[in-house]
Amino acid sequence: MVGCENSKKSDSDSNKEKCLSDDVINLDQGDPTVFQEYWMKKKDRCTVVIPAWDLMSYFSDTTNVCWFLEPELEKAIKALHGAIGNAATEERYIVVGTGSSQLCQAALFALSSLFEVKPVSIVAAVPYYSTYVEEASYVQSSLYKWEGDARTFDKNGPYIELVTSPNNPDGTMREPVVNRREDGKVIHDFAYYWPHYTPITRRQDHDLMLFTFSKITGHAGSRIGWALVKDVEVAKKMVQYLTINSIGVSKESQTRATTILNELTKTCRTQSESFFEYGYEKMKSRWERLREVVESGDAFTLPNYPQAFCNFFGKTISTSPAFAWLGYKEERDLGSLLKEKKVLTRGGDRCGCDKKYVRVSMLSRDNDFDVFIHRLATIKDLKCNQP
Amino acid sequence: MVGCENSKKSDSDSNKEKCLSDDVINLDQGDPTVFQEYWMKKKDRCTVVIPAWDLMSYFSDTTNVCWFLEPELEKAIKALHGAIGNAATEERYIVVGTGSSQLCQAALFALSSLFEVKPVSIVAAVPYYSTYVEEASYVQSSLYKWEGDARTFDKNGPYIELVTSPNNPDGTMREPVVNRREDGKVIHDFAYYWPHYTPITRRQDHDLMLFTFSKITGHAGSRIGWALVKDVEVAKKMVQYLTINSIGVSKESQTRATTILNELTKTCRTQSESFFEYGYEKMKSRWERLREVVESGDAFTLPNYPQAFCNFFGKTISTSPAFAWLGYKEERDLGSLLKEKKVLTRGGDRCGCDKKYVRVSMLSRDNDFDVFIHRLATIKDLKCNQP
Repeated sequence: MVGCENSKKSDSDSNKEKCLSDDVINLDQGDPTVFQEYWMKKKDRCTVVIPAWDLMSYFSDTTNVCWFLEPELEKAIKALHGAIGNAATEERYIVVGTGSSQLCQAALFALSSLFEVKPVSIVAAVPYYSTYVEEASYVQSSLYKWEGDARTFDKNGPYIELVTSPNNPDGTMREPVVNRREDGKVIHDFAYYWPHYTPITRRQDHDLMLFTFSKITGHAGSRIGWALVKDVEVAKKMVQYLTINSIGVSKESQTRATTILNELTKTCRTQSESFFEYGYEKMKSRWERLREVVESGDAFTLPNYPQAFCNFFGKTISTSPAFAWLGYKEERDLGSLLKEKKVLTRGGDRCGCDKKYVRVSMLSRDNDFDVFIHRLATIKDLKCNQP
Repeated sequence: MVGCENSKKSDSDSNKEKCLSDDVINLDQGDPTVFQEYWMKKKDRCTVVIPAWDLMSYFSDTTNVCWFLEPELEKAIKALHGAIGNAATEERYIVVGTGSSQLCQAALFALSSLFEVKPVSIVAAVPYYSTYVEEASYVQSSLYKWEGDARTFDKNGPYIELVTSPNNPDGTMREPVVNRREDGKVIHDFAYYWPHYTPITRRQDHDLMLFTFSKITGHAGSRIGWALVKDVEVAKKMVQYLTINSIGVSKESQTRATTILNELTKTCRTQSESFFEYGYEKMKSRWERLREVVESGDAFTLPNYPQAFCNFFGKTISTSPAFAWLGYKEERDLGSLLKEKKVLTRGGDRCGCDKKYVRVSMLSRDNDFDVFIHRLATIKDLKCNQP
């Protein structure tokens, strides 16, 4: 695929060209390139410089439970959560991972070790993040077993519930649904609990919370995630997983994440510079355009989100999730329909739901988003014109 | 542990102090900090500079089987193997991993998928790299099962043999020992098949070969490894593992590895600048000092390595492995004995052998190596003085 953004033509020219062209638009993965333009404007401000002799050892701090966590990154993570007010970091262990995917698997490994009966059931309420199914199944571990929808889960014995809030794919705020305290554990995935996506209504304070650098700032290529973990034994087991799995986490990525997270913290109260102000406006504007197309026809559905007071922004704001959970009003495979229009999305069946739903990334580059909106409008019109 | 290298005193002062002090010397892990002094001398030459807007996407090249491999790293890897002559890269897929540990697990996942009968037996000839046991066991996969020593392996059914050559922990050149072609696969781990450790006697040309950045240049903190894979289906399955496990590999680390590997290639024929010349002299000198202490007493044993003609250096050279496989002549737990002297090593039992052997890292900083040699000399004398 040749991206129009590489051409010398003006944006409006290249958009028109792309709309008319046969280019495939990939909105299946949530590649968060939308935020690149913000970082382009920073120019050299958050550039990292790493000499050849630096960051050579496996070890970052041998006195830390997470011995491969760079101390400066730990500080940067705590400072950012403090400034945004989205999660408690006091009396918690921070475990860094190669993205939050690796940490989620480390958490399954650690939490399942707390139960004698194996395999421990892994559940999530539909629609769920499709990758959870793969993460819980691919190596066919005897420690845990994917059991699907948390809402219909009725097996006895230990379980781990994955709660993503705001939810991937549908953007709703979530709570655990199984709630059998004596033999259940919860992994809270807060990848999208940041003010550009959703109102920050409370400081989350759970036993095991996951965050990812990718979906805050758009630096998916760095593969940095972190867990905030209350129980030291769980943290140790997660570190054991990460030690065997990859002997720790890239120091270069940790260094860059430190620089960039510190910049977020430093500028988060300066409206003209704040990443979160920028991100909020950007996402809001995309959602307005998407809703306009959807509401102008009778073909598609989108979830509605209640407005809420955001403690970070100090005002009532709307929700602008990283993915659109787009539905089709008729019983039809929406993913295939969009694929005919050369728009790749993730089918609802992969999220435990019906094929009349798809997950659409809202985090693409402007050009791709424009083309998506244009093509969606043509389908909507198509349907309206059908007998 | 307070490292003497952080003090303001001269090296010889701080050495003396450390020898007299109670500092624990950790030679259990193979943290390759020995090579840092080479990179210090490079000053700014291999410094990488990464602006905030760069390397943001998950994707590096969507047309490559390994879609998260940076094209420049692929070129750098091929160029280095070409210049050193240690491995064939033609008609092979390169798969990058978060260190070769993650790749080894990706390879177990991929190769076991080729067999219908599960679990596939995983074996390695003793003494083996202790981490293999953990890698093959920790998630209790139903796909494969650790079965220990390849030499005594007599189970029917499919198997995967791990062949490390030069071997970790004992530095010997290895070939597969099971050799049941019809139902066996081999993972060749060539982490140490570089001219500063061992004579390059042939260009390795196997189906699945693993390499790691850590043990070539000492950049363990970057967590970069790669696999050279002949069969596209195996490469695809490895990429599937890495996609689910961590959605690819740090782009910052790949960028830095590219810069540094290119420097190795560029300078490898310039004696005064060549990393391999430097590394060879450094390792040779350490081994001479170790052999001198061992041979001056009657307490310890070390393996002997045949000299061989190295195609890279164009002369006959000796072998200077990254680890010393130190034995004790009496039946005694050598690891505990060294621990009493505050030298941490890896017990031979963890490598499938007797506790009278230990694996000692030869890759520590100079100060730690000096202290180790000093303390070893005192044990040797102790033993000679015993009735």
